[in-house]
Amino acid sequence: MKRVVLQTTKLRSEMPKLNLRKEPPNPPKKPSSSGFGEVFTPNVLQLDWTALSGWSKPRFARQIDGIHMPYSASSLHYAISCFEGTKAYAADSGKALLFRPDINARRFAKSCRRLALPTIQPEEFVRLIRLAIRRDLNWIPHTKDAALYIRPTMISTDRSLRIAPPKSAKFFILLSPVSGYFKQNTKEATLLIERGTMRAWPGGTGALKLACNYAPTILPLKRAHRKKCIQNLWLGPNDECTEAGSMNIFFVFKCKRSGKRNVYTPPLDDMVLPGVIRSSVLTLLRSMDVVVRVESVSLSELLEGITCGNLVECFGCGTAATITPINAFRCDNRKYTLPEVRDGLATKLLGKLRAIQYGRIVSRWAISV
Amino acid sequence: MKRVVLQTTKLRSEMPKLNLRKEPPNPPKKPSSSGFGEVFTPNVLQLDWTALSGWSKPRFARQIDGIHMPYSASSLHYAISCFEGTKAYAADSGKALLFRPDINARRFAKSCRRLALPTIQPEEFVRLIRLAIRRDLNWIPHTKDAALYIRPTMISTDRSLRIAPPKSAKFFILLSPVSGYFKQNTKEATLLIERGTMRAWPGGTGALKLACNYAPTILPLKRAHRKKCIQNLWLGPNDECTEAGSMNIFFVFKCKRSGKRNVYTPPLDDMVLPGVIRSSVLTLLRSMDVVVRVESVSLSELLEGITCGNLVECFGCGTAATITPINAFRCDNRKYTLPEVRDGLATKLLGKLRAIQYGRIVSRWAISV
Repeated sequence: MKRVVLQTTKLRSEMPKLNLRKEPPNPPKKPSSSGFGEVFTPNVLQLDWTALSGWSKPRFARQIDGIHMPYSASSLHYAISCFEGTKAYAADSGKALLFRPDINARRFAKSCRRLALPTIQPEEFVRLIRLAIRRDLNWIPHTKDAALYIRPTMISTDRSLRIAPPKSAKFFILLSPVSGYFKQNTKEATLLIERGTMRAWPGGTGALKLACNYAPTILPLKRAHRKKCIQNLWLGPNDECTEAGSMNIFFVFKCKRSGKRNVYTPPLDDMVLPGVIRSSVLTLLRSMDVVVRVESVSLSELLEGITCGNLVECFGCGTAATITPINAFRCDNRKYTLPEVRDGLATKLLGKLRAIQYGRIVSRWAISV
Repeated sequence: MKRVVLQTTKLRSEMPKLNLRKEPPNPPKKPSSSGFGEVFTPNVLQLDWTALSGWSKPRFARQIDGIHMPYSASSLHYAISCFEGTKAYAADSGKALLFRPDINARRFAKSCRRLALPTIQPEEFVRLIRLAIRRDLNWIPHTKDAALYIRPTMISTDRSLRIAPPKSAKFFILLSPVSGYFKQNTKEATLLIERGTMRAWPGGTGALKLACNYAPTILPLKRAHRKKCIQNLWLGPNDECTEAGSMNIFFVFKCKRSGKRNVYTPPLDDMVLPGVIRSSVLTLLRSMDVVVRVESVSLSELLEGITCGNLVECFGCGTAATITPINAFRCDNRKYTLPEVRDGLATKLLGKLRAIQYGRIVSRWAISV
């Protein structure tokens, strides 16, 4: 690997020579069946930062060695921590492809700024991802719908218990070969609607990928699973639908008389994460001449839409979850089931996305590792 | 130390023999001047939990060795982490005293439940605190207003990147000799009022001591410091005052005509932490025949109160901050200053609290270590 010099304001990393040594000798041919994000590649790219000396050079550590932290680290006590999620895909051509990592890079910088953590310039962020993947390139799975999930993470390592902007931090990139996100059968994907628990709110941080947005969702998710739902549907303060678990959500309404189809998705505000797949789905829908409305759908509009038969399709999307059709909602102990869909918009969009991600059609969204 | 047996449902720990070995040989006679929570005692009591085998026995680790975590630990990625803060005081009698740790114990169990973390029975929680302190008893500072800050913490050590209830966790108790919390001069304590950033909201987790509540406050606090304010005054969705940084807040209004004094503090809801000092202050005020109203004060009532001269005193309180008089607010680029107070309620309350905490008067609130 070439020597890499980094600075606080602008990270400089040069591409290393590809290291195609297989370590361990036999990376799994297909992702573990044990579940999403449970198996990791041997190497973790990491950089350390202090307010005094700026960024260290990037170095590889062994994933198996874990991370060493002070007991008082403010990432543990005050959740000063944020992350991104993107994937590398094995194309039929033999190339490895990244899907729009520039969006993750910009979003990551925003997340870091919101926590008073140091930032990484977007171009450098993408270069560091490349650096990390090239070391474990043979871990990108070749099985259908599988990919190498990439988890860039920034955590405060500041050892003071005083609540304050961190004086030291660590950035690392963890890699995990994955296939599907959901353990449950997503052919029967129901979302649980609960009143009284809110994930995000105006003036909050729900639109950023901060660790603190996820902890409050664990218990509601447990309740959802108990009721055989795959996720919660999150509502805003005016009962507007905001997100489906950690996915963005799309509703397809069809006017019974005119047969006209309109796709709705919530607008980006303090409560909705600007998802990479969300943005891509919007572009794809427009290219398919589908009418898209970036507008709120309220809970009553949703339930009425199902009851009247106007809501004909619904799906969630995200990097981990890809595109997941939703076929029912559970609210106030009642189940609202959508009509069965064959070859709906979700299926078409997933086909198009996959074709781009795996390089079966050429697109500027897919870039070589 | 006696052997200690723990179970998942009910932890059993027996009191160990006191270990008064001095390690390191010379614990500081007074807390470090470097700041709050920056110096720690040599030992950390810790227990590990897995969903399969329940709790391990408690064991002491060396604080200096730090904590060893998987890169994928869900405390780092999803903020599945909560904590408590309480103090041990060196009484003139030579005894070490704890102040109402039973309240911390019950609150901690609530915080853990909210994150689907395992819980520790309140009596066991207090016993574990005693166990931890007795090992480093000679670290309780004897200087005026100083104490040993106790930080019981529970973190998820689950290594899956799937967002889910943790299957493994760690509980530890970190000890730090401290004096005051604020670096700034609290004789000129101003709070910054900003619109558009909210710490907590109805349906959120602001009333619990979860790590996730603190990360979003770092950047607003940085802005407050830049404007020479010690903390932010947090508002609810209807512009009601909720908390002052990480302190509960009290307002003393005096009717100009009748001279009658009423103390207001926000009611406990989703946005206000049920503070141990808050609860103690309420009891003390009532014992002093002061009229207390647990009612919301809106931003306009606050600013009008200052302008008209009806708001005569204001203070924040918390375990770390004790009782901190607030003498001004900064809002919309204007400064609202309260009249100067000598021997106000804050001073009286602080005197009474200190007398109990340091065992100068006998109270069932102060219990022996």
